[in-house]
Amino acid sequence: MSIQRVAVIGLGLLGGSIGLALAKHCPDITTTGYDADPATREAARARQLVGTVHDSAAGSVAQADLVILCVPVGAMAFAAEAIRDVLPSGAIISDVGSSKQSVVESLQAALPGHTVIPAHPVAGTEQSGPEAGFAELFEHRWCILTPPEGTPDDKIADLSAMWKRLGSKIEIMDAAHHDLVLAVTSHIPHLIAYTIVGTASDLEDVTRSEVIKYSAGGFRDFTRIAASDPTMWRDVFLHNKDAVLEMLGRFTEDLTALQRAIRRGDGDALHELFTRTRAIRRSIIEQGQDDARPDFGRADH
Amino acid sequence: MSIQRVAVIGLGLLGGSIGLALAKHCPDITTTGYDADPATREAARARQLVGTVHDSAAGSVAQADLVILCVPVGAMAFAAEAIRDVLPSGAIISDVGSSKQSVVESLQAALPGHTVIPAHPVAGTEQSGPEAGFAELFEHRWCILTPPEGTPDDKIADLSAMWKRLGSKIEIMDAAHHDLVLAVTSHIPHLIAYTIVGTASDLEDVTRSEVIKYSAGGFRDFTRIAASDPTMWRDVFLHNKDAVLEMLGRFTEDLTALQRAIRRGDGDALHELFTRTRAIRRSIIEQGQDDARPDFGRADH
Ligand SMILES: NC(=O)c1ccc[n+]([C@@H]2O[C@H](COP(=O)([O-])OP(=O)(O)OC[C@H]3O[C@@H](n4cnc5c(N)ncnc54)[C@H](OP(=O)(O)O)[C@@H]3O)[C@@H](O)[C@H]2O)c1
Ligand SMILES: NC(=O)c1ccc[n+]([C@@H]2O[C@H](COP(=O)([O-])OP(=O)(O)OC[C@H]3O[C@@H](n4cnc5c(N)ncnc54)[C@H](OP(=O)(O)O)[C@@H]3O)[C@@H](O)[C@H]2O)c1
Repeated sequence: MSIQRVAVIGLGLLGGSIGLALAKHCPDITTTGYDADPATREAARARQLVGTVHDSAAGSVAQADLVILCVPVGAMAFAAEAIRDVLPSGAIISDVGSSKQSVVESLQAALPGHTVIPAHPVAGTEQSGPEAGFAELFEHRWCILTPPEGTPDDKIADLSAMWKRLGSKIEIMDAAHHDLVLAVTSHIPHLIAYTIVGTASDLEDVTRSEVIKYSAGGFRDFTRIAASDPTMWRDVFLHNKDAVLEMLGRFTEDLTALQRAIRRGDGDALHELFTRTRAIRRSIIEQGQDDARPDFGRADH
Repeated sequence: MSIQRVAVIGLGLLGGSIGLALAKHCPDITTTGYDADPATREAARARQLVGTVHDSAAGSVAQADLVILCVPVGAMAFAAEAIRDVLPSGAIISDVGSSKQSVVESLQAALPGHTVIPAHPVAGTEQSGPEAGFAELFEHRWCILTPPEGTPDDKIADLSAMWKRLGSKIEIMDAAHHDLVLAVTSHIPHLIAYTIVGTASDLEDVTRSEVIKYSAGGFRDFTRIAASDPTMWRDVFLHNKDAVLEMLGRFTEDLTALQRAIRRGDGDALHELFTRTRAIRRSIIEQGQDDARPDFGRADH
């Protein structure tokens, strides 16, 4: 039986985008939602992020056959506990958290006997809150499902089918592997961006206003991701600690090697690495995961 | 006397953009150009990057009152030597190199007795070559001039006036300070981006195809700048070694502190840094150096 009533808990960027995308692509699906913040619920009603915004988590899930938790990774356990007593027994419980191993553990602990299928739509922006969502966020993006062993195939198929209707491509992997892959493609890039932006704003010899004025030389690309939500990212680093620290170790090793090449004036080593990295960019553009226009569309306005 | 005949040496992204921008904004200025690569000269003729493409550097500068060297930083000395014997005595010699201290030294050494006014338009893309340039590259961007002591004020005014007509805002600073500022806002970001893209493409546990598929989580922002021209960037790191190594030292200190915070589970330290970095982003957008649309215009197509 396909999914007909979806409850969205947490109506920020991800939750709001899911609501809007369901309204756009799946008008047959009824949506309800809840957010802990009364101001967010108000904004969600005004933007019609879901069909009905409830004033309690329990109220929003009472009729659902799929519940999607769209809260920071550190809040997943609380969000799950708040619906434990009212969750319909056949409902699938899913989420959109950026790390998966700790999430699947806390959801299974909080909701024993329920079908838990964690998901991570690899799509986002640096904006957050109820005004940030848009229906197209998931189009052409991957959504990774990490169902624990023993999850019924038909439930996985139902959830996959829904994400496909929102425009996503589906991949299934285990939670530990997900956390390693995303440490590289998302968590470490964010950590590095936060660091360099922090470093640049704390210098004595270079003023903050100079950093801002000359940011078009490369720095501004980092500030975009370093403007992401602090709570969400704190939670990601605390909950995906091992994979993040492992990948960070590899990165600093490589950075040290490059530092040595610069110190020694080893132009060949630099040129060799800088040539290798271009190939990856080409593949990303070929596979539609980025835009090759020289200015990313900046010249449009 | 204002500038009337401009010679552009090196007809890639920067040289080509200058030629096109002059044609768009200063149709009264005559442009000539030269590139060491015959194929580039051919492409430059086809795209009409400058009014006349010459087959020798000497031919292109014979009538010029401003010569702009648009070659990699490591090639500046060679490019200057090639025009030494024919450069009109009153001509201004300028460039667009990404580092300035070594450039001003080598230009003054190669062209004694000439007015050398190094410049760095802080504008660029990851593309290079004669097909990459566009007339709007410099609009709303800063162009930094680093005139050595004793440069006549009227020559500085002439060069500034020309860059303003191309849409740039002008700042004047000394070459050493330029190199420190750009190490932070451009060179270190590129170095870090090259490193993380290199790290990600060399892992055993995560395949390259996974890195590409899930790049929308943040990684793709780094691949863009890590696709920049290898020769240009090798030269920048070799020629701005001291400032780059100094700033890299600060960055790795800060990264180590963050690593420790993650290892210890110190969420407050993470949250505090992640909050501070948002302010910089806001200022960059307010000052028109980037685009606040959630997707950078990616949804346009
Ligand atoms: N942003 C991205 O690019 C991205 C991409 C993929 C996945 N994700 C994941 O998606 C999830 C949500 O991120 P987001 O960007 O949508 O964040 P967001 O815009 O800040 O939205 C999260 C919302 O959840 C609310 N909330 C927090 N705890 C709650 C609880 N116990 N019950 C109900 N509502 C609660 C928050 O309210 P308060 O503001 O009052 O706390 C907030 O309105 C996170 O797990 C994140 O890792 C994010
Ligand atoms: N790209 C950016 O974002 C950016 C931004 C600001 C400043 N800059 C600076 O601008 C300069 C040019 O960069 P670009 O991006 O325009 O590079 P580009 O597109 O590769 O163009 C450089 C051109 O100069 C030619 N060339 C090399 N040596 C020469 C010589 N001795 N005489 C004549 N032509 C020669 C090259 O030919 P071959 O291909 O045959 O070598 C190439 O066609 C560099 O100093 C760079 O640091 C770049």
